[in-house]
Amino acid sequence: MQIIIKGMCALSVTLPLLLAGCASNNSDAIVKKMGNELENTAIETGLPKNIIMVVADGMGPAYIPAFRYYMDNPETEDVESTVLDDILVGTARTYPAKVSGFVTDSAASATALASGVKTYNGAVGVDVNKQAVETVMHRAKRYGMKTGVVVTSSIIHATPASYMVANEYRKNYDALADSVFDTRIDDKFVADLMLGAGTLNFIREDRHIVNEFINEGFQYLDALEQLPSISNKAPVLGLFASFEMPWALDSDDPTRLTTMTSSALDYMTSDTGFFLLVEASQVDWAGHANDIAGAMAEMYDFSKTVELLRAYVEKHPDTLVVITADHSTGGLTVGASGEYRWDPIWLKGVKASPVTIASGLKTADDKTSYLQTQLGFELNNDEQNLLSLITSESPARDVESIVKRILDKRSNTGWTTDGHTAEDVYVFGVGAQIERFRGQLNNIDIATKIFELLDEKHAQ
Amino acid sequence: MQIIIKGMCALSVTLPLLLAGCASNNSDAIVKKMGNELENTAIETGLPKNIIMVVADGMGPAYIPAFRYYMDNPETEDVESTVLDDILVGTARTYPAKVSGFVTDSAASATALASGVKTYNGAVGVDVNKQAVETVMHRAKRYGMKTGVVVTSSIIHATPASYMVANEYRKNYDALADSVFDTRIDDKFVADLMLGAGTLNFIREDRHIVNEFINEGFQYLDALEQLPSISNKAPVLGLFASFEMPWALDSDDPTRLTTMTSSALDYMTSDTGFFLLVEASQVDWAGHANDIAGAMAEMYDFSKTVELLRAYVEKHPDTLVVITADHSTGGLTVGASGEYRWDPIWLKGVKASPVTIASGLKTADDKTSYLQTQLGFELNNDEQNLLSLITSESPARDVESIVKRILDKRSNTGWTTDGHTAEDVYVFGVGAQIERFRGQLNNIDIATKIFELLDEKHAQ
Repeated sequence: MQIIIKGMCALSVTLPLLLAGCASNNSDAIVKKMGNELENTAIETGLPKNIIMVVADGMGPAYIPAFRYYMDNPETEDVESTVLDDILVGTARTYPAKVSGFVTDSAASATALASGVKTYNGAVGVDVNKQAVETVMHRAKRYGMKTGVVVTSSIIHATPASYMVANEYRKNYDALADSVFDTRIDDKFVADLMLGAGTLNFIREDRHIVNEFINEGFQYLDALEQLPSISNKAPVLGLFASFEMPWALDSDDPTRLTTMTSSALDYMTSDTGFFLLVEASQVDWAGHANDIAGAMAEMYDFSKTVELLRAYVEKHPDTLVVITADHSTGGLTVGASGEYRWDPIWLKGVKASPVTIASGLKTADDKTSYLQTQLGFELNNDEQNLLSLITSESPARDVESIVKRILDKRSNTGWTTDGHTAEDVYVFGVGAQIERFRGQLNNIDIATKIFELLDEKHAQ
Repeated sequence: MQIIIKGMCALSVTLPLLLAGCASNNSDAIVKKMGNELENTAIETGLPKNIIMVVADGMGPAYIPAFRYYMDNPETEDVESTVLDDILVGTARTYPAKVSGFVTDSAASATALASGVKTYNGAVGVDVNKQAVETVMHRAKRYGMKTGVVVTSSIIHATPASYMVANEYRKNYDALADSVFDTRIDDKFVADLMLGAGTLNFIREDRHIVNEFINEGFQYLDALEQLPSISNKAPVLGLFASFEMPWALDSDDPTRLTTMTSSALDYMTSDTGFFLLVEASQVDWAGHANDIAGAMAEMYDFSKTVELLRAYVEKHPDTLVVITADHSTGGLTVGASGEYRWDPIWLKGVKASPVTIASGLKTADDKTSYLQTQLGFELNNDEQNLLSLITSESPARDVESIVKRILDKRSNTGWTTDGHTAEDVYVFGVGAQIERFRGQLNNIDIATKIFELLDEKHAQ
């Protein structure tokens, strides 16, 4: 049995069930070698013409080793490195403005990463006094660069919204969608390319913002299959779902972030240089749901995106890629409950998201047989006993919880919250001037350094 | 009210209750400036004559931001940096040999850090075939350098034992104590200085190893107050407790690791150069106990030791200090239970360890009054109700658990296990050739790099 990983041509690989064949894949080895060489010579390169900011939402420090061990080939004595292991440069503190304590939400942290300003939880692109702040995307646009956003959430979810627009509260979604159209930077739209979800707020009874963009000359897409037909000659709005794209585990294209990013790079590459924000939005959502199988599948898509970006830097060494998270979600720990083990092998055969599996489970005639097929392993007696608790009256949430608890117990995964925690996050990167990001940073430092790079390049 | 931090002269400071005054302490500012300058010029220095390896046992990635926020001065808008924030160089993977899965114990990880060899959980200084391996301390001794060990556990606990001796199982304590005396490297004892606990296994009915050391010319100490009288002319064995020194929270000297390290540096400094292992042993034990107040107090002692070492490097730039942890303990998360907050302020006034407080609580006439004094805050109704459950028959463990749960709920601290987890650990450092340790390492790389530095220096 095989899983086919779709995506851009260079990354299309056929992987054995355990995904571990990836490490021995020839093109991957080449990409890795190139990446290492680049990292070593980065300090000698000039200022970046292109800057790509990548945020893996909610990817606290535990997600990185968890993903490494998830990807490990059990047939080898050593544990294979991931692309992230090769390009670590440091860590970043995530705390918001003091009024919100030490634990940030995604809006305050995205505003910090985008603008260099600490603000209160819930704030999108505004400071503690609710005044709009300039973001690195705004300045890039002001300097005549192309700008873009690629996410798997709505394009007005906290992280992308904080780079593009401003609102005192993250959940004012209609107002945020309005702002994406209404905001101008030197008479230009904030972003030349926006790919993700969002029809819920962009196609409304009171305002059809998609049509407004089309009337302003934007190309509009509503299916990933249309991405290859994008023209470089006009701006792009692609909304592929109502408010979020399907989970990687439920998606026809389990590396849909990679697919979108590949098309975005083709579009963005030009003489003007560009600033591109890429967000692996749903790592965070899997963390909130305490869904370890979902988290690893989202990390897989994210890691393929990072491999793609590293290969792009190889071809375009005047590009800087900075990768971080905005905070940690779920209080994930790699091991739990007094046992010295973490067994991700049980996550490898999961065929759909826990919510989708739970939906099928409620109506399945033979629940054991159905769940075994969906999880890819035989259920033991304890697990079968859990299933016997499910009736047609069981709330969907309870059924989903049973599926996740089986996977947590098998893998021995720990969680402490359905919210966020205040661990520092890792910073990764490759390319021109990545050396400036080494060591222990504050999240606002990342924006400050990008502002500096934009200014220095513009002054040349 | 004030807490007096005892310790070496240069670090004796009187701190306000919240300990935050530290950041504005003048000598601290000087030390910090010197450290930063050093870090920036480290790459230009030659090979280190002295190497100091510091292990904070169990200090997973969550402990670092937790300690930063614990030390934060709430009177300032910004969050002050700790000494660790200034000197981050990267991370290290901790997994043991594949036979033991992905979650290491302290013996396997100490053996990896000491020898560069991955082994099974429980192994002290032996490989997967139970064959003794050479450690960096052995090679330093072979090259004629002074060697030493400073810990707050027994000197034959897993971490120090793995640097000095070899045994197939970490809990063969009598055999490990025997080996510390019996092992010779080129006819010399493995360590010239050993400070910590250990009389339980070094003074036994069947063998009085302390007397054997004294007969071989060792100076023997059994109280911290004797440290200033150490002579440089003879080796040193200091055993200050049976199997562990008191918790920092219970100690007459809450920075006893710093005190011992200060004396050790005076002793070790010589023309031959030295290799010194320093372990903050009890961060791990607080993690196992899910004791957040204890963990922060152990981190405080550890941080003062790091400040001391950074100041030493300033005076002796031919010194390398490498600092890491062996694994993460307790599944600590900075925030928990769906609330976006972590409030370490409630940990600042704790006057003793939870085990000591629990002991007093069982016999206290007015339990509420007693506990309020010990914790430094007024108990709310829920907390007082918890106390009413305590009787003279209550197991000590249950009473201790009530104390810890009050502190967890106040601070909103999360734990997932009383064992270890597989997160990567941070690597910090200052001094000569610290650049070699940047990025994402495997724990065995740390030993390999130290071996290389020893060899290169010896070949000069």
